[in-house]
Amino acid sequence: MEARKPYCVFCDIVAKESPATIRYEDEEIIVFDNRLRWVPVMLLVVPKRHYTQQEFWGDALLSKAGRVAVEMGNKHCPEGFRVLANFGGQALQSQEHGHIHVVGGTWLGRYV
Amino acid sequence: MEARKPYCVFCDIVAKESPATIRYEDEEIIVFDNRLRWVPVMLLVVPKRHYTQQEFWGDALLSKAGRVAVEMGNKHCPEGFRVLANFGGQALQSQEHGHIHVVGGTWLGRYV
Repeated sequence: MEARKPYCVFCDIVAKESPATIRYEDEEIIVFDNRLRWVPVMLLVVPKRHYTQQEFWGDALLSKAGRVAVEMGNKHCPEGFRVLANFGGQALQSQEHGHIHVVGGTWLGRYV
Repeated sequence: MEARKPYCVFCDIVAKESPATIRYEDEEIIVFDNRLRWVPVMLLVVPKRHYTQQEFWGDALLSKAGRVAVEMGNKHCPEGFRVLANFGGQALQSQEHGHIHVVGGTWLGRYV
């Protein structure tokens, strides 16, 4: 594991040093529940390596992460789901560590 | 080009048979303005091949499309942007042809 300074809660979850409800895990990717509860299903698809959001979205691993995100959506939200990532202040990005949100379980309405 | 039945407006834009404001284009990907005007920047990153959304998000091309989406966001929305895809009725998916939205240019607020 690299780049754990400054403190990164996603790295702590990857290292099993912070609790999370884990929905999927392999050597490169982990999926766990967001602590937010805006809609019934809010999952985070996270590379285990500490990529920044910009690095993650420029890496070959994104294809696998996207596939996992859609598999999670299909499994947990059969009526539909949204896959998304936020970049920068105007989009409410709160974690530097790269990630993809999967949200669903209800009528989602507009995406912005 | 394949699978243009039933009618697909994205395939028509790829074929230059429907008008669109094109922001980027290469052999595999095209980026053009959404016709919606909910926020100042609404771009669609679209594979030229007629993948379904599920096929596109399971394909290696997604990494390149994600990289292009983030390059477009950085260029057109330096204060932040959201990259997303909708799957199914509860998420307002309206086009079968796979695509990624890039939205920004203002405070975006919640993503669901």
